Amino acid sequence: MSDVPLTLDEVHALATRCLAANGCDGANAAALADTLTAAEGDLCVSHGLFRLPGYVAALRSGKVNGAADPGVDEIAPSVVRVDGDGGFAPLALVRGREPLAEKARDQGIAALVLVDIHHFAALWIEVEALAEQGLCAFAFTASKALVAAAGGTRPFFGTNPVSFGWPRRSGPPMVFDQASAAMARGEVMIAARDGHDLPPGVGLDADGKPTTNAKEILAGTQLPFGGYKGSSVALMVEILAAGLIGERFSFEASERDNNDGGPARGGELMLAIDPRRFGDAEGYLDHTETLFEKMLAQDGVRLPGDRRHANRETTRDGGVTVPKALHDQIVGLAAGS
Amino acid sequence: MSDVPLTLDEVHALATRCLAANGCDGANAAALADTLTAAEGDLCVSHGLFRLPGYVAALRSGKVNGAADPGVDEIAPSVVRVDGDGGFAPLALVRGREPLAEKARDQGIAALVLVDIHHFAALWIEVEALAEQGLCAFAFTASKALVAAAGGTRPFFGTNPVSFGWPRRSGPPMVFDQASAAMARGEVMIAARDGHDLPPGVGLDADGKPTTNAKEILAGTQLPFGGYKGSSVALMVEILAAGLIGERFSFEASERDNNDGGPARGGELMLAIDPRRFGDAEGYLDHTETLFEKMLAQDGVRLPGDRRHANRETTRDGGVTVPKALHDQIVGLAAGS
Repeated sequence: MSDVPLTLDEVHALATRCLAANGCDGANAAALADTLTAAEGDLCVSHGLFRLPGYVAALRSGKVNGAADPGVDEIAPSVVRVDGDGGFAPLALVRGREPLAEKARDQGIAALVLVDIHHFAALWIEVEALAEQGLCAFAFTASKALVAAAGGTRPFFGTNPVSFGWPRRSGPPMVFDQASAAMARGEVMIAARDGHDLPPGVGLDADGKPTTNAKEILAGTQLPFGGYKGSSVALMVEILAAGLIGERFSFEASERDNNDGGPARGGELMLAIDPRRFGDAEGYLDHTETLFEKMLAQDGVRLPGDRRHANRETTRDGGVTVPKALHDQIVGLAAGS
Repeated sequence: MSDVPLTLDEVHALATRCLAANGCDGANAAALADTLTAAEGDLCVSHGLFRLPGYVAALRSGKVNGAADPGVDEIAPSVVRVDGDGGFAPLALVRGREPLAEKARDQGIAALVLVDIHHFAALWIEVEALAEQGLCAFAFTASKALVAAAGGTRPFFGTNPVSFGWPRRSGPPMVFDQASAAMARGEVMIAARDGHDLPPGVGLDADGKPTTNAKEILAGTQLPFGGYKGSSVALMVEILAAGLIGERFSFEASERDNNDGGPARGGELMLAIDPRRFGDAEGYLDHTETLFEKMLAQDGVRLPGDRRHANRETTRDGGVTVPKALHDQIVGLAAGS
């Protein structure tokens, strides 16, 4: 089965058309298509068009509000809150971004609380948008119970990614975005689809036994990265993206989700820091470049995100290729089938 | 060689006497003795009296100012900065704690920048002190180049711990404190001292080859936990505890430190969040207890810090035991030898 070549504009147009045909209003479809296209452009395929059928399923089941109108409030001098109105996360993030950035510049550090959203995308996209404005940023989100706590054998945590971004003097910011699972859910899903085995340590089967079979892991549980330390990170994400802000823990999302294949309701926490307010306004950019240079001078060492940025250069003009089965499915969903 | 039993009061008195005899003024000796005693009390022996000879070495070499008088400034509406005056971290942390807590309560979130300090202790101690006041808190600090970046074979990052704390309705807060190295430096040092082998993955020898020999690792490099993900966490800590605040990266600290065995000059970043300002003031404590209960209902799963808290119950009345060689060394240092 051959792949379908698409320019990024075509990716965006296809996503927009498919979402609009399934109940998204213009603002939501645009924000979501921007997010999907950014993922495709960096060749993060597990967060690109691959997710579109899940988004559509959540619209068709009525779980997600395709016409969500997220509202922004200041709930403390350094805290902005967006009520996502039951929609997908991207529009809520777009609405919260400038208020968060403004507060970070005014106060030095600020937080953005997002509730009643459905998050199904990569976090680096929202972190990079802040870092491109010269801010240091964090994002945390939980999901459904997919990953065992250290010592456990059943899904309990979400894959619970943490993303962190730092501005650079030139070029794209340094941004990492990593699941606290040993492997991102999307990668396990793609391995299951394609029949690839996974390395040891990624997950357990339904009996709690280690396995390298992706389908068995999907039926069992993923494992945290780095043993109990990754498990602690996952716990921190549950607290920040749910306990702190009054949203659902991953285990609660699993209990309440309708399992339509789309993202469960949940929350997200972002933090933004203005480095110009932290005591080294003149020096911080150049100083940190010396760290990056020293890292990159070592054989075998890369900066997080470098591969994505290299991919971005390639796809800007060269576009991407989409598996034909996925492309056919999306075209069908756009036509209402 | 037998161990020497000490009550925690005796630990505190011994540490205070030894520090005072080596150039610490009363305020610095008290803050440092509190920190060492807290570590001993939780049986974090690698951060307890085990570190005292290093503190003394740094006083005797003149690297650290035993009479440091840390000054506190507000540098942005949500950012407090403490200039540590070249002293050990504990007194700077004590001076910054209330201003940070007050700002977090006023603003919702706040940051504490610490510069020109020498940090050699566990981070959970300062995080727990904030969490006991009902705040959610983070701490980050770098050190000297001890840990390779993912893909590298030479020390580059510090062990770069991250600590996170969350208040609970009753009992001690949930606090974790974990090196972004696969193993904390102090544990590797103790294994080298006692001749114990370490698990695979902890470090490389001086030729960049994997080894389980603790002495070879000390001569080579430690490795990050969880591969490239732990390496990303270590990079984030370098940025937060040095790049953001104008202090030394771990590789810079290595270049400039006098290698007297005590802690190098560096910085620390703390963040504090008041959960009552994040949208679920009525519910957050009870809600998060449901998460903890659900975790603990699983066989084999524990909360981070539970072992420390159990140790604390034991040592409160039962005291601790200190290796005789270490005790003799400290008594000697207190007597000026």
